Amino acid sequence: MSKILIFGHKNPDTDSIMSALLMEKFDKNLGFDVEAVRLGSINKETKYVLNYLGIKEPRLIEKVEDGAEVCLVDHNEFAQSVENIENAKITAVVDHHRICGFKTSEPLYYRAEPLGCTATIMYKKFIEEDMEIDKTTAIMMLSAIISDTLLFKSPTCTEEDKKIAKKLEEIAGINVSEYGLEMLKAGTDLSDLTAEELIKLDAKEIMLNDVKSQIAQVNTASISVMMERKDELEKAMKNTIDERELDVFVLLITDIIESNSQVIVLGKKSDIVEKAYGVILQDNTAFLPGIVSRKKQVVPILTQNA
Amino acid sequence: MSKILIFGHKNPDTDSIMSALLMEKFDKNLGFDVEAVRLGSINKETKYVLNYLGIKEPRLIEKVEDGAEVCLVDHNEFAQSVENIENAKITAVVDHHRICGFKTSEPLYYRAEPLGCTATIMYKKFIEEDMEIDKTTAIMMLSAIISDTLLFKSPTCTEEDKKIAKKLEEIAGINVSEYGLEMLKAGTDLSDLTAEELIKLDAKEIMLNDVKSQIAQVNTASISVMMERKDELEKAMKNTIDERELDVFVLLITDIIESNSQVIVLGKKSDIVEKAYGVILQDNTAFLPGIVSRKKQVVPILTQNA
Repeated sequence: MSKILIFGHKNPDTDSIMSALLMEKFDKNLGFDVEAVRLGSINKETKYVLNYLGIKEPRLIEKVEDGAEVCLVDHNEFAQSVENIENAKITAVVDHHRICGFKTSEPLYYRAEPLGCTATIMYKKFIEEDMEIDKTTAIMMLSAIISDTLLFKSPTCTEEDKKIAKKLEEIAGINVSEYGLEMLKAGTDLSDLTAEELIKLDAKEIMLNDVKSQIAQVNTASISVMMERKDELEKAMKNTIDERELDVFVLLITDIIESNSQVIVLGKKSDIVEKAYGVILQDNTAFLPGIVSRKKQVVPILTQNA
Repeated sequence: MSKILIFGHKNPDTDSIMSALLMEKFDKNLGFDVEAVRLGSINKETKYVLNYLGIKEPRLIEKVEDGAEVCLVDHNEFAQSVENIENAKITAVVDHHRICGFKTSEPLYYRAEPLGCTATIMYKKFIEEDMEIDKTTAIMMLSAIISDTLLFKSPTCTEEDKKIAKKLEEIAGINVSEYGLEMLKAGTDLSDLTAEELIKLDAKEIMLNDVKSQIAQVNTASISVMMERKDELEKAMKNTIDERELDVFVLLITDIIESNSQVIVLGKKSDIVEKAYGVILQDNTAFLPGIVSRKKQVVPILTQNA
């Protein structure tokens, strides 16, 4: 039997990379033959964490073989997963997203909790198994929580995430606010990315009932700087709509300091965004005050209006 | 906000009833407003357990309101769940089956493990929360394990189920073999049931890829006694095929002493059973030595051949 591959979603964020590495550590401690891998390039925020800890980035894979044993972290929807996932044997899932059309022919280990990030669940798994959480492990978990909750400010952040982050802060021996802000800021340095790269940075293909959508998010310290590139962003979005035959492409440009988003929407189903938020798109764009979480503030409300 | 309803699958077995009651106890201990209910009549085996412990059977429900908050135990497929489940808000699932087409628009608590029964997972949840497992609770858990694993003989039974059953046996202070055999035998007293009732006793509607199937199981101490009723069973199966527009109806008559099954198969897709087991159905029936688990030895192999 070959190694079980562990990976997060396409266009991996810090939680997807850290949770894959944490799951690898967890499984190896239990004696399993596993390898954490990744489904896309490492973003600058995650790079900051890997550099900080001196950890090597996981190997990139493009697809899996028929019958390959895999463990999914931080996602479950096949459209967000590796190529050929339909023919893999999924042995385990650890996730914090909605479940949508997930399918196996045999029983498996599946653990999802409505928490701020997957690494918080990994923390609970370590504790339940009485596994040691060392300084490096604590910073890995903490980085994923900070990333997914935008330093505890996102509505996805739960009391449990905050409580666990407090415990991790003690083990890590770092100042979370300082470290977190540095880490988030490292992720907003996007000046050298092309528009194509920007819209793929944190993009998820999601079925909103029958509406095939792509919902991408870019974190920034200044919406207006990002909006200067609106024309090239729209061109890249249009190409993706054609390639993937999307009904709608939603790009959230999220101000991580002020906790607001500017949205750019293209595609024949753009009206679902207007209906969902009671806004009129002007020149394909609208300002959504207080909206920062795709999972909690975008996907459910768009699904209701699709 | 009204009560969260907790229930197992339609045609409930001992694990579905016990796990709903265990989850109710667990959630109430944590201060939640919940009620265990059931989606069908209580079978004789489960009745034996309820009588033994002096526990009242949960209330029967037929459907749920739009937006009702529900917790599913021992199942996740909507075809096996309550009427109108599509419009309920599923807050949690605890299960040990394959996941097939499960769908929510928001994140939820989902815990599945490939163990012998749901109550084994409930045991782990009690332990993780440092909740007391008293004698009654232990016998509830033990009864579900015995039922789903046919006294540890089914291939679905894992080392973990056995280990946990040992611990529960100590708390319960009963002889598991004696108690278990009495309990299972109580369930095989089916002489007063009509053929219609027999085929509904433990029936699940399952999509085998695109093949709409019903797979029912009857436990018996004598296959030949049950086969004397073959004609009336087939008549009842045919009616169900017409009513539910099934492609195939598979009835497993399982000898719980010898661990074999006789299968009766009707419907236009009967050939998938022949392909799956390399048998020829004679007069719609075949003997399947060693086959006792629908979940482990029937659903996956039929799916592969559908």
